[in-house]
Amino acid sequence: MDKLNLMRTDLIDEATEVVQHRTEKEKDTLYESPGIQMNEERKGRVIITHIETDASGAETIGKKEGTYITLSVPTLTAEDADGFEQLEQQFILSLHDIHHQLHLTPQSKVLIIGLGNRTITPDAIGPLAIDRFHEEMFSLPFEHGQVVFYAPGVTGQTGLETGEFVKAIADKVKPDLILVIDALAARNQDRLCKTIQLTNTGIHPGSGVGNARNEISFESLGVPVTAIGVPMVVDAPVLVVDAIETVFKVISSQIGEATKPSSALSVGSWLRSTEAPINVEAIKPIFGEWSGWSSEEIRALLQEVLPPHHQQLFVTPKETDTWVTRHADMIQSGVTKWLQDDVFSSISP
Amino acid sequence: MDKLNLMRTDLIDEATEVVQHRTEKEKDTLYESPGIQMNEERKGRVIITHIETDASGAETIGKKEGTYITLSVPTLTAEDADGFEQLEQQFILSLHDIHHQLHLTPQSKVLIIGLGNRTITPDAIGPLAIDRFHEEMFSLPFEHGQVVFYAPGVTGQTGLETGEFVKAIADKVKPDLILVIDALAARNQDRLCKTIQLTNTGIHPGSGVGNARNEISFESLGVPVTAIGVPMVVDAPVLVVDAIETVFKVISSQIGEATKPSSALSVGSWLRSTEAPINVEAIKPIFGEWSGWSSEEIRALLQEVLPPHHQQLFVTPKETDTWVTRHADMIQSGVTKWLQDDVFSSISP
Amino acid sequence: MDKLNLMRTDLIDEATEVVQHRTEKEKDTLYESPGIQMNEERKGRVIITHIETDASGAETIGKKEGTYITLSVPTLTAEDADGFEQLEQQFILSLHDIHHQLHLTPQSKVLIIGLGNRTITPDAIGPLAIDRFHEEMFSLPFEHGQVVFYAPGVTGQTGLETGEFVKAIADKVKPDLILVIDALAARNQDRLCKTIQLTNTGIHPGSGVGNARNEISFESLGVPVTAIGVPMVVDAPVLVVDAIETVFKVISSQIGEATKPSSALSVGSWLRSTEAPINVEAIKPIFGEWSGWSSEEIRALLQEVLPPHHQQLFVTPKETDTWVTRHADMIQSGVTKWLQDDVFSSISP
Amino acid sequence: MDKLNLMRTDLIDEATEVVQHRTEKEKDTLYESPGIQMNEERKGRVIITHIETDASGAETIGKKEGTYITLSVPTLTAEDADGFEQLEQQFILSLHDIHHQLHLTPQSKVLIIGLGNRTITPDAIGPLAIDRFHEEMFSLPFEHGQVVFYAPGVTGQTGLETGEFVKAIADKVKPDLILVIDALAARNQDRLCKTIQLTNTGIHPGSGVGNARNEISFESLGVPVTAIGVPMVVDAPVLVVDAIETVFKVISSQIGEATKPSSALSVGSWLRSTEAPINVEAIKPIFGEWSGWSSEEIRALLQEVLPPHHQQLFVTPKETDTWVTRHADMIQSGVTKWLQDDVFSSISP
Repeated sequence: MDKLNLMRTDLIDEATEVVQHRTEKEKDTLYESPGIQMNEERKGRVIITHIETDASGAETIGKKEGTYITLSVPTLTAEDADGFEQLEQQFILSLHDIHHQLHLTPQSKVLIIGLGNRTITPDAIGPLAIDRFHEEMFSLPFEHGQVVFYAPGVTGQTGLETGEFVKAIADKVKPDLILVIDALAARNQDRLCKTIQLTNTGIHPGSGVGNARNEISFESLGVPVTAIGVPMVVDAPVLVVDAIETVFKVISSQIGEATKPSSALSVGSWLRSTEAPINVEAIKPIFGEWSGWSSEEIRALLQEVLPPHHQQLFVTPKETDTWVTRHADMIQSGVTKWLQDDVFSSISP
Repeated sequence: MDKLNLMRTDLIDEATEVVQHRTEKEKDTLYESPGIQMNEERKGRVIITHIETDASGAETIGKKEGTYITLSVPTLTAEDADGFEQLEQQFILSLHDIHHQLHLTPQSKVLIIGLGNRTITPDAIGPLAIDRFHEEMFSLPFEHGQVVFYAPGVTGQTGLETGEFVKAIADKVKPDLILVIDALAARNQDRLCKTIQLTNTGIHPGSGVGNARNEISFESLGVPVTAIGVPMVVDAPVLVVDAIETVFKVISSQIGEATKPSSALSVGSWLRSTEAPINVEAIKPIFGEWSGWSSEEIRALLQEVLPPHHQQLFVTPKETDTWVTRHADMIQSGVTKWLQDDVFSSISP
Repeated sequence: MDKLNLMRTDLIDEATEVVQHRTEKEKDTLYESPGIQMNEERKGRVIITHIETDASGAETIGKKEGTYITLSVPTLTAEDADGFEQLEQQFILSLHDIHHQLHLTPQSKVLIIGLGNRTITPDAIGPLAIDRFHEEMFSLPFEHGQVVFYAPGVTGQTGLETGEFVKAIADKVKPDLILVIDALAARNQDRLCKTIQLTNTGIHPGSGVGNARNEISFESLGVPVTAIGVPMVVDAPVLVVDAIETVFKVISSQIGEATKPSSALSVGSWLRSTEAPINVEAIKPIFGEWSGWSSEEIRALLQEVLPPHHQQLFVTPKETDTWVTRHADMIQSGVTKWLQDDVFSSISP
Repeated sequence: MDKLNLMRTDLIDEATEVVQHRTEKEKDTLYESPGIQMNEERKGRVIITHIETDASGAETIGKKEGTYITLSVPTLTAEDADGFEQLEQQFILSLHDIHHQLHLTPQSKVLIIGLGNRTITPDAIGPLAIDRFHEEMFSLPFEHGQVVFYAPGVTGQTGLETGEFVKAIADKVKPDLILVIDALAARNQDRLCKTIQLTNTGIHPGSGVGNARNEISFESLGVPVTAIGVPMVVDAPVLVVDAIETVFKVISSQIGEATKPSSALSVGSWLRSTEAPINVEAIKPIFGEWSGWSSEEIRALLQEVLPPHHQQLFVTPKETDTWVTRHADMIQSGVTKWLQDDVFSSISP
């Protein structure tokens, strides 16, 4: 969780362009966009979105070239043993999927890094996952030194940039793969804690802006990096913009009798809350001119009007402590099983 | 921090009536309201608001009869040693002020309870303060058994209602005073972490709704109870309503050229962000009809339109971990000094 | 773990009389002692000792009247998944055994107390078990309020005697059973972390001396109390006496060619390290007169000669952190399964 | 704290040769030994021992060539504010003393490493000191990146040798000085928690045995390394040997009427508990032949006779939690003041 820039979303399938082009009629277009391959399927309660981009496609959606897999369980709750079970199964399959070209062997070394600040509950997912590796140390089916794990703490806590810390350790361990576990920021509060994203493009704090010192990626380290992230927070201004737009859309659709009762349960509805175009004329009497504004325009107004403190607030679920523990456990368990069955077993598939 | 109802504010000076009547011309009226005595002064960087209500005044503002003292440092930051120093000085004086009629003696017993869930950062202020008492145990100037302290954890963690837990301990200890330290919910995000409230009316989870089982007060326990609270969170829907209203007000005032440059620095401005009436006609073209709605009407719309998850989100500063630690330290330090100098010294004033 | 008196043993089968009479030829006598019924059996790797005493038998062994069950796995290691699995199975059976006369029903209420100081690793077993109950809260098969749990912390940390704390909570909860989880002191360092003791006689800090204020028992609370304890420490002077006596015995047996190769693997050998009489005349040239002294005489000498600091030291295994976590987990898991299957299931056996 | 070899002492002034030669008449000899310069003085309640060795002197005492400073407060208790205050004053002076040849400047970079396992109370001193640096981060008078600190955890917890971890970070940070904070093992239980040792020879796990991979020193890292250690544990067999020898000595001196009432208060008595030669003939009737054995012979017997578990036990004070916290606080405070006044102030002395 980047402390300075939570305005952005870290989830690829919240990228404006992906969401906007996902309306029913435009879906085909996106699927056929040069440089973007997108596939969506449902296994039980889990929606799996697989996106591959090359350089041109990456530019289109404002993300980095590579593979992105998001697993979502829209109906997940913090006490949902079955949901987490299903999520873990797909997570293990996705770990296999995203790493199958790396040709890891039983002799491979893996460095696991848990990012984040353990003193802020929703940001503790990385350190908590590392704690779980420590607790389970004696029963891990690895030889000593094959799996190395650290939770470096946040920059402010140690005096060394996180990216520099990881580089230092990686230079020493010389791993064949680095897994980085981190909390993410989402745009849509419905996504909070219900999605897990894997990407082989690594971690890019400051996102598009590109803060090379903090980057943790193949480019910066010379080692394949897979980032595993769970959206745990929404930035406060993002929440406000999202809430205002939701008001406009819902009222617009109610006025237009545009109720789509069945769609609420379809796969797509999870990701396409913004799909229906707002009937601005219909709602303008109630909400005025700004109901026709773009998200960016509303956000710009808020940034000008709201006090600066507002930018320094984040939003997280009241059960954030339970969520963060369960996701950390699930990730540790899934990674361990994948390493055991897929990497360190003598007859690797 | 009550897990189910963060809609409310726990701060008396955010009570709608107090805020509404605080406009310059109505101030006198409130000050003279039957049953309400309000006094506001500034000492260095600290604004001290002292409110006394009798039964009739309490009904007017929708809070319980008694004394409320709020100390605010609008310019406080998490790393502000001077600000916390000034706040602690006034806090100690306020502890003296609010307890002077209790006639505590060096033989008095004090029970200190730290409420909240230590696994959620902003809710950990009570348990952290109790931790500090433990750490400083050996240097505390009290005889064994004169000061008893517990952090009972939240109801969901233990199976016993918090109020029942406190009653059980109080029946055993038979204290002359109970201090309860807790995180509060605020309405205005500007207040977060910058205010501390003392009241001899105790703790009333569920507020107006009145959940007697959870109440921690003189009425429920037969012992004087002083609640010490710091606003650490804003409920997400409250934040959204507040943000929308701020947009309306700021734009309205800009259109009306109603800029009041000096007021930004006055004592009152901290508490009277809502004072200027919105010029609805001026802003209606931009924001539509709802710019004339009341807070309650906007809130009702949001509650209908936003998904239920939204109600289960809270907002807190990104530096919540530093804030909560500093406030817990300050409260522990202030309470200790007050007990030492004012209660347990042989020549009590 | 009592902070002031670790000289004693908290394990009944280390009681001098039990151990002394356990030599092969005297065993029958003890078994037939009026008021003492002792039964020992082995299930897999677990040795189960069941002792029932009435008032006269209790006086003989210097312990309180009631039932004592000790489960020991002499070959247990901290990373021994199989050993802990076997221990848990017998632990669940023993919980059934020791409570079967209480006639608990699905409507019964159970209060679980984790004693000890979480900041001292080997003393943290009680608080850690309570932490585990908290973590598993949402998946516990109990209705709210049927199971209440607390870790009160040590007296020095809170200002209220632990026994008073438990009484306060018990008066409120009115449970049908109180389970108390605690770290114990052992006499023999071989027993450390490899034994678990259950007794319906409760907790008696200060042991025989009888410190009524601290007692947690049916007599002090009016509610059945079952104490669940694991020996985690040996008092330093006890370790020294034990080491000196072991030297005398081993050398004596070597000189006398009194090697008993098979006994090392028998059930009894675990508990009867002191059985063979020392041949004092044979070893006196090497070790002098004191090789003929009793344990009490050696201890008295040490107490006189060693500096007072020595009395304030305790001994614990280097892997104390792993041990304490595993035992806390096992106890939480075993108690939960017993409550679920035996108490709260609709058709209780 | 090395997990496998606690037999040794980590304190130079417990080195057999230093202690043995410290008897009054031989003192001069040692002081004049080629390659060893030893100076002892008392400031208030603190005894300061300063030892400088060159290669030949280092060989004599079985330690590494360099500077050793030990600060001892024989009367220190865990709740002793005055004692810790005096110790901190001397500690700051010793930091100045041991570093004055390094010519640190306000531009120097310092890497601080807290060794040890935070889940074992007496071994947590390093991690706790690092925690304190984190807590005080915002008030530290350093520029970002000038002071970098980490608590790497133990090898078993991370998969990377501690020495390798420190090398990785040091290669990145390129510090001018590395401070390593660690718990030590003592031989004499009287020393526990009452001494702090500084040495510019670094950390040498496995001591004489020499495990180069774990070494943290100028030789292994190419950067000056100062080790700051506090004896927190005694190995169980060491405690037993020490106790037996103490019995022999005390009884021997009592028989010989060799009471030296004044020496008990002299500076030397703290370090010279072994000074008086045992009158073996006088005590042989009571204690036998072995009262004339050397420490090594007694230890060899114990190692043969005591069960292997015995070697895996350590001894620590019952107040180990308070001790470890106070020492960690004192070290953090002393290091910060030294850095501020001596290194980073613009006019460095």
